[in-house]
Amino acid sequence: MLSLEVLHMKFLASPAVNRLKKYSQKPFDLTKKGALNSRRIETLQGTLGPLTLLYATDRVDDAVLDSLWQLAEERGALAKMRAMQSGQKLNKIQGVPSENRRVLHTAMRDFFSDRNPSKHALVASTKAFEEFVKLEQFLKKRSTQKYHTIIQIGIGGSYLGPEALYKALEKYQVQNRSARFISNVDPDNTARILKEVDLKKTLVVVVSKSGSTLETKTNEALVRKAFVQKGLDPKTHFLSVTGKNSPMDNPKAYAASFYMEDYVGGRYSVTSMVGGVLLGFCFGIETFKEVLKGASYMDKVACSEEKQTNLPLLSALLGIWNRNFLHYPTFAVIPYTEGLARLPAHLQQCDMESNGKSIDKEGRQVPFCTGPIVWGEPGTSAQHSFYQWIHQGTDIASIECIGVKQSQYGYDEQIEGTSSQEKLLANLFAQSIALATGKKDANPNKRFHGNRPSRILLTKQLTPYSLGAILSYYEHKIAFQGFLWDINSFDQEGVQLGKKLAGEIIDCFKGTSAPKEPIKSYLSALEQL
Amino acid sequence: MLSLEVLHMKFLASPAVNRLKKYSQKPFDLTKKGALNSRRIETLQGTLGPLTLLYATDRVDDAVLDSLWQLAEERGALAKMRAMQSGQKLNKIQGVPSENRRVLHTAMRDFFSDRNPSKHALVASTKAFEEFVKLEQFLKKRSTQKYHTIIQIGIGGSYLGPEALYKALEKYQVQNRSARFISNVDPDNTARILKEVDLKKTLVVVVSKSGSTLETKTNEALVRKAFVQKGLDPKTHFLSVTGKNSPMDNPKAYAASFYMEDYVGGRYSVTSMVGGVLLGFCFGIETFKEVLKGASYMDKVACSEEKQTNLPLLSALLGIWNRNFLHYPTFAVIPYTEGLARLPAHLQQCDMESNGKSIDKEGRQVPFCTGPIVWGEPGTSAQHSFYQWIHQGTDIASIECIGVKQSQYGYDEQIEGTSSQEKLLANLFAQSIALATGKKDANPNKRFHGNRPSRILLTKQLTPYSLGAILSYYEHKIAFQGFLWDINSFDQEGVQLGKKLAGEIIDCFKGTSAPKEPIKSYLSALEQL
Repeated sequence: MLSLEVLHMKFLASPAVNRLKKYSQKPFDLTKKGALNSRRIETLQGTLGPLTLLYATDRVDDAVLDSLWQLAEERGALAKMRAMQSGQKLNKIQGVPSENRRVLHTAMRDFFSDRNPSKHALVASTKAFEEFVKLEQFLKKRSTQKYHTIIQIGIGGSYLGPEALYKALEKYQVQNRSARFISNVDPDNTARILKEVDLKKTLVVVVSKSGSTLETKTNEALVRKAFVQKGLDPKTHFLSVTGKNSPMDNPKAYAASFYMEDYVGGRYSVTSMVGGVLLGFCFGIETFKEVLKGASYMDKVACSEEKQTNLPLLSALLGIWNRNFLHYPTFAVIPYTEGLARLPAHLQQCDMESNGKSIDKEGRQVPFCTGPIVWGEPGTSAQHSFYQWIHQGTDIASIECIGVKQSQYGYDEQIEGTSSQEKLLANLFAQSIALATGKKDANPNKRFHGNRPSRILLTKQLTPYSLGAILSYYEHKIAFQGFLWDINSFDQEGVQLGKKLAGEIIDCFKGTSAPKEPIKSYLSALEQL
Repeated sequence: MLSLEVLHMKFLASPAVNRLKKYSQKPFDLTKKGALNSRRIETLQGTLGPLTLLYATDRVDDAVLDSLWQLAEERGALAKMRAMQSGQKLNKIQGVPSENRRVLHTAMRDFFSDRNPSKHALVASTKAFEEFVKLEQFLKKRSTQKYHTIIQIGIGGSYLGPEALYKALEKYQVQNRSARFISNVDPDNTARILKEVDLKKTLVVVVSKSGSTLETKTNEALVRKAFVQKGLDPKTHFLSVTGKNSPMDNPKAYAASFYMEDYVGGRYSVTSMVGGVLLGFCFGIETFKEVLKGASYMDKVACSEEKQTNLPLLSALLGIWNRNFLHYPTFAVIPYTEGLARLPAHLQQCDMESNGKSIDKEGRQVPFCTGPIVWGEPGTSAQHSFYQWIHQGTDIASIECIGVKQSQYGYDEQIEGTSSQEKLLANLFAQSIALATGKKDANPNKRFHGNRPSRILLTKQLTPYSLGAILSYYEHKIAFQGFLWDINSFDQEGVQLGKKLAGEIIDCFKGTSAPKEPIKSYLSALEQL
């Protein structure tokens, strides 16, 4: 399963795949003199709204791109995207019990122009807008004004997406408002944060769809205990974001509850109240609304037939080329802006939990590679970290860099004739060129083989609007790849076995059951420490 | 180069390699009933000092382990480690110009028992101790007491190692003392931090061996400007860590300078003054000393011939097995403790910059895979992020989890019969077992193939001493893998080409040279935003 040559039966029947397999034997050579020329760079770029994608440094040519678009057509990628946004039940696997749900995270922000008119989408976007208005009113309330800090207790999608967006928007902070995140069941995580905040001025938002996530419940109890110890009534400080009628939809325990629906998966939930409460509190409701607007704009783009400008689909196809035809097992996202420092961690979750699957939608083992490992750290820092590997290692990663033209704060200085922002951009472009073209040298240690693919996603500035667009761009890129592979990107059965076994070991710690092998031996190793 | 079957000429001559190749056709089956039994778990573990390595869930058996140790012997791994610690010039490539330096980061902490007696090691450890004493005196000075915050300006090794250790030791903070890091040339990074700190009470330590790193110089200028704007004299606030006689070794610009030497690579420099100034300031000199003591202890372990307890070498060999024989292209480090949240980023740098190499020490292209991609996030958060992929994706990653028996803060609570710390440990062990054994199920979506390798590094508590040991364990694991592959783990020529091209683009921004293709087209895309 590690290295694959053949594609799926359905794929195999496809003329596009056969052509792509042929082309992959001799992919476009970026190291040839003049190969990375102005015509190529100008042709291989797409701009729509706030985003521009430059992909001249991917190893594609017209023939490959034509076949990739042919593949998209054969696999009905656009039709599936439209079906998803219209509320068809795409979260299912034929013939076996499965979640059998709609997938409507796009409805969480479909309040603006050109709303999806289909019945289920409309019901969902109407409900979402009600929650948005509820949040707006909550934030306006006088009793909300006294709080300076918000702690979000949640894990997975209830943590990584909100954290990534929070970090990206710090520039937009309402005076004296900031956030902390408690996700890990590690009690040190909670202890540390409790040391740092003034509980009197702290709101706590607890996020769990079921109201029963182990980590979240446990951390909530630890934090409630701290409030009680300080003589504070947790009820007035605690909010919940949860499913209607869950154990956490309880006015006796929470000052307010906001609702999330089963058609929004955790990893796609940041534009729902899962991210909304925290982002609205820290940055104001208008800033959150701009995020939604940017995301919604890109949702519509994802349904468009324009090849050059349906950036999420284009990016998905380039990903398929790198993954299934050039056989690169990983995808690095490298933002050249500190604001997006935690975006790779969010995308790691969103992509790997969505597409880290081995069976197709009919329950058959797929004989090709699906979702890659997603990883990354911000540039230019990464250039002093893992770029040695990227340039001269024995393996190759597929890379997407994100660049912004203008800084957020505008605090800058001409040093030796250029600003920091210019130096940052110079490094971004330089790396893409260097990876592509390489360099000959008589000294083998100074030799660069080149032909290492990358692309650049550019935006003018990291604003709430462009951030929303970037988020949605990646969400749909991931969904499109699932559609192309014909896997279910919306469930996560793979996390169940570990959870079940953890429950058994917890019972051993509790003393309600005696440890059997192999648990017994692990507990005994622990004892001996 | 992506998937390789053959090993290097020298490797090829090796009987151990031939045996390992044979064994890799049918690696130990962890899914067989009873395979993961008490005998296996008890046998396949090694304890020394504060660390225990449990590797029963790697796909090895006695025959594989014997051959791996045979390989270590054939490649002279231990002899090279001892040569390194004794100050031989291992940072070189035969026959071509190269750095031609000693590699003596171990001397930075060799102040305790059993000092390395060889000449160059002794000179280096004596010098390092002088710097340590200088730091101790600086921290005692009355004028140092008024500072609350330290900003470290540095990139790569001057950032990631110190940040990882800082995060791990927060529990040990001296009252009111904290640190910030400025690494990226992105001016928003600097702007953000300047908004958050009180410059009057802030020390700035600028770290650059050459005194001329682009990012560091630029950020230093931005921060100096902020001091001047506030009417403060930068000279009294700024410290430098740099090479003796570098442009930054300048008493006119810095209140104090601490020295670093060319035999300590950036990514191995955290126990030198590169980490020392910040860690000493925030946590006190005694805490920093404990880190050094733990690291030095593990340095000695790395030279030992005891197979069961030379944990760095054992771990390196398991890595080679997973990388070169089972062909797993990535290595995930997953700490089950928030304190180590940034350790994966540090190891990503340390490992990928060291071993992301394609030529051997004689300058020949290697026909096998070297350093893997290193990635990871803390568990249990990661379980709600990329574990779906780890359990049910089409690819396999090699994994090392880090577990701690006791929390740092001791703030915990029995919830439903167990503490958070117990829940954390239950999850750690559960994942290792689940990945190994898998689970059959009639529903293909609930099926787990198992045989996904992992191991667990355990310690009693994350203390300065055990943290030092963990750091050194990984440093030597990485060095051992370089020795086994016969590559130079201590240079980084692969970062030069990008740097050179960035310089050319900076000249275009400056206006001192006109942009040629392909730079011109990239700048034009930027213009159009």
